[in-house]
Amino acid sequence: MSAILFLPSQKVISADGRRNLLELARELGLPLQAACGGKKICGRCRVVIEETGELPAPTDREREALRELTERGYRLACETVLCGPARVRIPEESKILPPVILTVDGFGDIPVRLRPAVELCCLEVPPPAVERVTADRERLLKALEEAYGFKKIAVDPLLLLRLPQTLRDRENRVTAAVWNQRELVGLFPGREERLLGLAVDLGTTTLVAYLLDLQTGKRLAVSSTLNPQVHFGDDVISRIAFGQKDPEGAVQLREVVREGINDLIRRVAEKAGVRPELILEAALVGNTAMHHLFLGLETRYLAQAPYPPAVQESLWVKAREVGLAIHPSAAVHLLPLKAGFVGSDIIAGILATGLHRSPRVRLLIDLGTNGEIVLGNRDRLLCCSTAAGPAFEGGHIRWGMRASAGAVDRVRIDPETLEPTLRTIRNQPAQGLCGSGILATTAEMVRQGILLARGNFNPLVRSARLRPGEDGQELVLLREWEALGGQEIVFTQRDAAEVLMAKAAIQAGTGLLQELFGAPPIAETLLAGAFGNVADPDDVRTLGLIPAVPTGKIRGVGNTAGYGACLTLLNKNKAREADRIARKMEYVELAGNSRFQELLMDSLLFPGAQDFKDYSWRGLC
Amino acid sequence: MSAILFLPSQKVISADGRRNLLELARELGLPLQAACGGKKICGRCRVVIEETGELPAPTDREREALRELTERGYRLACETVLCGPARVRIPEESKILPPVILTVDGFGDIPVRLRPAVELCCLEVPPPAVERVTADRERLLKALEEAYGFKKIAVDPLLLLRLPQTLRDRENRVTAAVWNQRELVGLFPGREERLLGLAVDLGTTTLVAYLLDLQTGKRLAVSSTLNPQVHFGDDVISRIAFGQKDPEGAVQLREVVREGINDLIRRVAEKAGVRPELILEAALVGNTAMHHLFLGLETRYLAQAPYPPAVQESLWVKAREVGLAIHPSAAVHLLPLKAGFVGSDIIAGILATGLHRSPRVRLLIDLGTNGEIVLGNRDRLLCCSTAAGPAFEGGHIRWGMRASAGAVDRVRIDPETLEPTLRTIRNQPAQGLCGSGILATTAEMVRQGILLARGNFNPLVRSARLRPGEDGQELVLLREWEALGGQEIVFTQRDAAEVLMAKAAIQAGTGLLQELFGAPPIAETLLAGAFGNVADPDDVRTLGLIPAVPTGKIRGVGNTAGYGACLTLLNKNKAREADRIARKMEYVELAGNSRFQELLMDSLLFPGAQDFKDYSWRGLC
Repeated sequence: MSAILFLPSQKVISADGRRNLLELARELGLPLQAACGGKKICGRCRVVIEETGELPAPTDREREALRELTERGYRLACETVLCGPARVRIPEESKILPPVILTVDGFGDIPVRLRPAVELCCLEVPPPAVERVTADRERLLKALEEAYGFKKIAVDPLLLLRLPQTLRDRENRVTAAVWNQRELVGLFPGREERLLGLAVDLGTTTLVAYLLDLQTGKRLAVSSTLNPQVHFGDDVISRIAFGQKDPEGAVQLREVVREGINDLIRRVAEKAGVRPELILEAALVGNTAMHHLFLGLETRYLAQAPYPPAVQESLWVKAREVGLAIHPSAAVHLLPLKAGFVGSDIIAGILATGLHRSPRVRLLIDLGTNGEIVLGNRDRLLCCSTAAGPAFEGGHIRWGMRASAGAVDRVRIDPETLEPTLRTIRNQPAQGLCGSGILATTAEMVRQGILLARGNFNPLVRSARLRPGEDGQELVLLREWEALGGQEIVFTQRDAAEVLMAKAAIQAGTGLLQELFGAPPIAETLLAGAFGNVADPDDVRTLGLIPAVPTGKIRGVGNTAGYGACLTLLNKNKAREADRIARKMEYVELAGNSRFQELLMDSLLFPGAQDFKDYSWRGLC
Repeated sequence: MSAILFLPSQKVISADGRRNLLELARELGLPLQAACGGKKICGRCRVVIEETGELPAPTDREREALRELTERGYRLACETVLCGPARVRIPEESKILPPVILTVDGFGDIPVRLRPAVELCCLEVPPPAVERVTADRERLLKALEEAYGFKKIAVDPLLLLRLPQTLRDRENRVTAAVWNQRELVGLFPGREERLLGLAVDLGTTTLVAYLLDLQTGKRLAVSSTLNPQVHFGDDVISRIAFGQKDPEGAVQLREVVREGINDLIRRVAEKAGVRPELILEAALVGNTAMHHLFLGLETRYLAQAPYPPAVQESLWVKAREVGLAIHPSAAVHLLPLKAGFVGSDIIAGILATGLHRSPRVRLLIDLGTNGEIVLGNRDRLLCCSTAAGPAFEGGHIRWGMRASAGAVDRVRIDPETLEPTLRTIRNQPAQGLCGSGILATTAEMVRQGILLARGNFNPLVRSARLRPGEDGQELVLLREWEALGGQEIVFTQRDAAEVLMAKAAIQAGTGLLQELFGAPPIAETLLAGAFGNVADPDDVRTLGLIPAVPTGKIRGVGNTAGYGACLTLLNKNKAREADRIARKMEYVELAGNSRFQELLMDSLLFPGAQDFKDYSWRGLC
């Protein structure tokens, strides 16, 4: 008996002339792939024989699986039995993959064990025996049971249509895609090695699609687009109203968002150079109204107190049933909802940020038309949704706009001259103020004493930039002749009131959750969504948007909704974790809550304002 | 305490002033319906208080459920608690139903316990609580669990779309249709009391639909129509060829048969005066090719040895997936197949005739383009399919036609004059010979010595009715001037050869099964299908179509395929029984079977022919 040295691990085992290299590698606990479980089917357990004595010629299976690689010393471990000493390398591509990393912008890396719900199974299905004919489907299922141990697998009826031909296309070799060890959701002729997943964040304003390689965990492509439903209403309430107007309204809303997602699917597939039919699983997150409109569910009652959703638990539907242009048999998971105004985007956000596993209490705020707030740790999760209004998205603000090229996103006001300095997205000529620009303008006006605590313009401040206008006093941020686009941009008394109202709603909602939680110290505040990534933590603090915590403890965490959806694709246990989060969350209804009303009244103040600390100024408010 | 007398059973129990009449009836074991299990929801436990002392006024629930019936003494047993003596009648409509009877033409009555897969559940779903909002779907499922004990019920996604509105249409009262205690397949506002099932026999030539009331077991309507696929080929092989010709062929075949079934659905629903959406379950049977063409499965390999079906086990698909115009969420059961040429029609036939439960060995023959033969008893079931050709359906016969008005179905030939007497269907002018007419003509020609044992015309017989023609000698059954339609009808030497070949195939197939079974005595021969009902057992015996058994033991049993499908709807256990039958059947492939070839050669004889017993005639054949 002589020694076989495995590289790169440097582990040694005796060549016994009986067991093949796969069996030996397993005994040593080496990370060598074998999707078929050693049944000599999958052709994945490739090794390189770097040094050995005499070696039998490659088998037919090896030649077929490895082709020209055999010339470079590649062999299949399951086919190779050595008697003499040898040096065997397990190449990178044959290793069982370690946990993969999902990078969350601004939040960090989330290690996650790769465990997608779909498994690709390479199979050889024997032809029907003449003496005892078994049907194609039943032979396929038998082969699947024998090679992979899957029992009682259901077969999507759609796959039956072409099943006889698929079995025969590549001489009885097929790759079966099995979902959750219980349903056949794909069948490909020959060997198919790619397995893709699609995560979609259904935002009220923006749709984002992530294409993942579920065998490596790699993010292959990301793409986003304006939610085409905006043409039927900027916010969910106006879309629900549109959907109720006539019987076709809801169908239109459903169809345009599905088309929007399908556009994204085409784009990410093209970017990654893959066929969309290899996408065998999808996960969708969104607020409750977006979820319902996408499915075509009745939304009338979502707009009436107590705002009951039509459904709240996780749903799995077939891609073809919801018109998604991926594999028609693929399972599409709609993550669970919590309430009419706390959707699966928030639950996915908790999943991605790990709020539900955190020993310390943290705060997660998703700022959009509704501000959803979650306060919690591993023991308890409180959530609410405040009708903050669209001010932080640019809505209801005279010169408000979406965060696109030409939107002002940073503002500084000189303390001496009160002259503003503006920065625009992509340095395009200024066209208006996006959310972070509105926040920055308000914060700077508060800092420089232009705005008083209750949101009024300070009548004692004089400047050529200040003037009366239609909506009360206004600050001219950009004069007509200063603007490249010839566009005057002002910030009015009414705008300030809108911002104050919005921030008060968030602040009061957060305050109520803190009280209900027993006023715990908050270790960290996470601002989710695009807004959270661009908002200046100093501005956030100046306006009192969130409880007074050190600025360093405020973080923009990006699209946590989308990341959460990605996580459920990479590891199916995360989908169940989302369900557990949904059940664990305690929803606090703010409508009609008298304590919330009190806190809201108390929050109608900018804490950073000079008069707030100096009561003698009060008379001026 | 005083006595309550229940009628019509005459049972007596004490009125204790505590337990309601439903509880008392249960204690006595009386057959009183209560679909909700006594949870005061369903309103089915109607009783008539015929005599009593003072009685509390009907409750609101009683008034709502019973309306004007309250004036006639009707009450709900679950709402009524009596203290004094009373006489209470359980009216017919409130009784739990006894086993129902399915009548099989020519075969007899099959008692079957009514146990459909779908249950109708009357529910009251409480509105969402303001302090703790639960979604509509989850409240419905909770109510279903509380009232009926159904746990983990899946909800067809389609039902979600209108669920919120349905819940509110009748003040939170709904009727839920639950399939197999595991999936919600229907949801109706208010109280829905009808539950219908549809059985379809997909014949190569004829489609038959049966509409059943699954709450009484009554057959509400039956309708049949020509399978529109006949326009693409008379037999399955030519249709498979058509389906392969171009990619649209299979789609066309699939669509026309689905339209044909939908026409039947409209007709039976109209006859019964019901809405097709109340059909919440369907069962389909047919030969393997019809089954595949209906589903749109690849049929190429069904026409190539060893003729493997694409699938053989039972399939359940949603009505909308196969385009059936019943409730779109209804489960459609396609009964199991055995082989490429032994379909679910045969398995349903075994189920209906009880061959698989019979202590004595019986023979079931379904005569069509293929003659399927089953020989068996409760211990063993052997089956085969013979390519008998379409002679018994009128195919390949000069004046052959389908069994419709004007087809000759009975023939007598005068022994002296050799003048034929013909009977036609509906006494219309003769247009041709249908299967039984062909059988009768051949048998009479054999009896009168016109045809010899090997199928040749007897050259010694002289008659003005006999003459040479294109296809050898021919017998003029109807002269041009005798026919009202002006139509001459003849039976030729070639026709006789076709009949001989067809009967030989059936006889040899039967003979082989008998040998394999160990030559058991055959207690009874059942002829299934329309042909079996009209064929004269004497003719069958004369030609030697089946083994020599007394004529009385030959029975036409009608459309056993359709009856079997009906049985699976009436009692869901019968569907499982069909699966067990399929597994138990042993299929004998005749193609390439040398013993079958020998038997076929030996069977190319008409046993009733005169020369068969008199060897001296042989030289003439």
